[in-house]
Amino acid sequence: MQNKKKGLFITFEGIEKSGKTTQSRLLYDKLIALGKDAIYLKDPGITELGEHIRKALLFGKNISVEAEVFLFAACRAQLVNEYIFPALKEDKIVICDRFSDSTFAYQGYGRSVNLSFLKKIDEFATKGIKPDLTFLFDFSFLEASERFSEDKDRMENENINFHNRVRAGYLYLASMEPNRFFLLHPKFDKDKLHKIVLQKVLERNI
Amino acid sequence: MQNKKKGLFITFEGIEKSGKTTQSRLLYDKLIALGKDAIYLKDPGITELGEHIRKALLFGKNISVEAEVFLFAACRAQLVNEYIFPALKEDKIVICDRFSDSTFAYQGYGRSVNLSFLKKIDEFATKGIKPDLTFLFDFSFLEASERFSEDKDRMENENINFHNRVRAGYLYLASMEPNRFFLLHPKFDKDKLHKIVLQKVLERNI
Repeated sequence: MQNKKKGLFITFEGIEKSGKTTQSRLLYDKLIALGKDAIYLKDPGITELGEHIRKALLFGKNISVEAEVFLFAACRAQLVNEYIFPALKEDKIVICDRFSDSTFAYQGYGRSVNLSFLKKIDEFATKGIKPDLTFLFDFSFLEASERFSEDKDRMENENINFHNRVRAGYLYLASMEPNRFFLLHPKFDKDKLHKIVLQKVLERNI
Repeated sequence: MQNKKKGLFITFEGIEKSGKTTQSRLLYDKLIALGKDAIYLKDPGITELGEHIRKALLFGKNISVEAEVFLFAACRAQLVNEYIFPALKEDKIVICDRFSDSTFAYQGYGRSVNLSFLKKIDEFATKGIKPDLTFLFDFSFLEASERFSEDKDRMENENINFHNRVRAGYLYLASMEPNRFFLLHPKFDKDKLHKIVLQKVLERNI
């Protein structure tokens, strides 16, 4: 399968409770209201396989780092194959809540898995497809933790050093690809953030 | 975690219905009867995570080749981490129904996934642990297919060319490591096969 994508691939990244999901949904709803051909996805998730694995990843016990890396890769591979690749081929706008950068930030920077190994795995999983535009919601773990609920999932229970490494990883990734990444501060007003996001997307002549 | 294993790691490989499971169980039962400290595993499977994934792999629909590769790797990583590594460290005999060679034979030779990429993935999943002794049950797909039941799983439904490539792959792997692989013909009498297997294992001074 060749990477001859035409549509626009937009991802939302950031640590937990940064507002990714809210903003990505708002963007999707607005694009649909504007009559655009868009689909909304989340990684991991959506596919039948992905949903099973997502539960195992979030609430499973004693999952090794190695298994975690491969499970995320499996979800992504299935998501690309079932949804992303076909949608981009049909010139659709694909909005995805998390994608490859989450792996690099969490498993690479957060858990110290070799980054060039992770990139090889990711390239195989994604067939080389990369986002055109990535919104990174950047704020500190302390700011994010105010938003945590009582029933934290496995990722939210990681310690503060882990989250700091993930954040630093994200910022490093963004610094390497300034044309793809767009940084946002989650403390902004929800509507203001939405306007900024929408404007950046509409600039792409969709 | 360092690869300082002491125990004996024995794997059973071959195409479906070749008798791997029967013979590996017979060996395990005999070793236990002889008072040896052995454990019996299967890959994929055994771990809580592995059992979920195993079902998805065998009966799931539209699973992409890429996702399949990562799911097998995830199962193996979890199996190594939870069972194989700790058991070998405690000097146990580990008997495993399928392991890395299945990935090389099925995904590598069978589905033409790049072998050196698969080896990198496998090394990460297994922390570099390799079997000491591998029994390969070699016979043709036509011979094996006589043993298939009505409710074939996904792998058994693959076409004859696929199975022929898998078989050729196994034989190539065996030819490259003659000290580790021991070839067996599944058409031999069950008890005769068991005696041969047991003798080869006892030769290892366990």
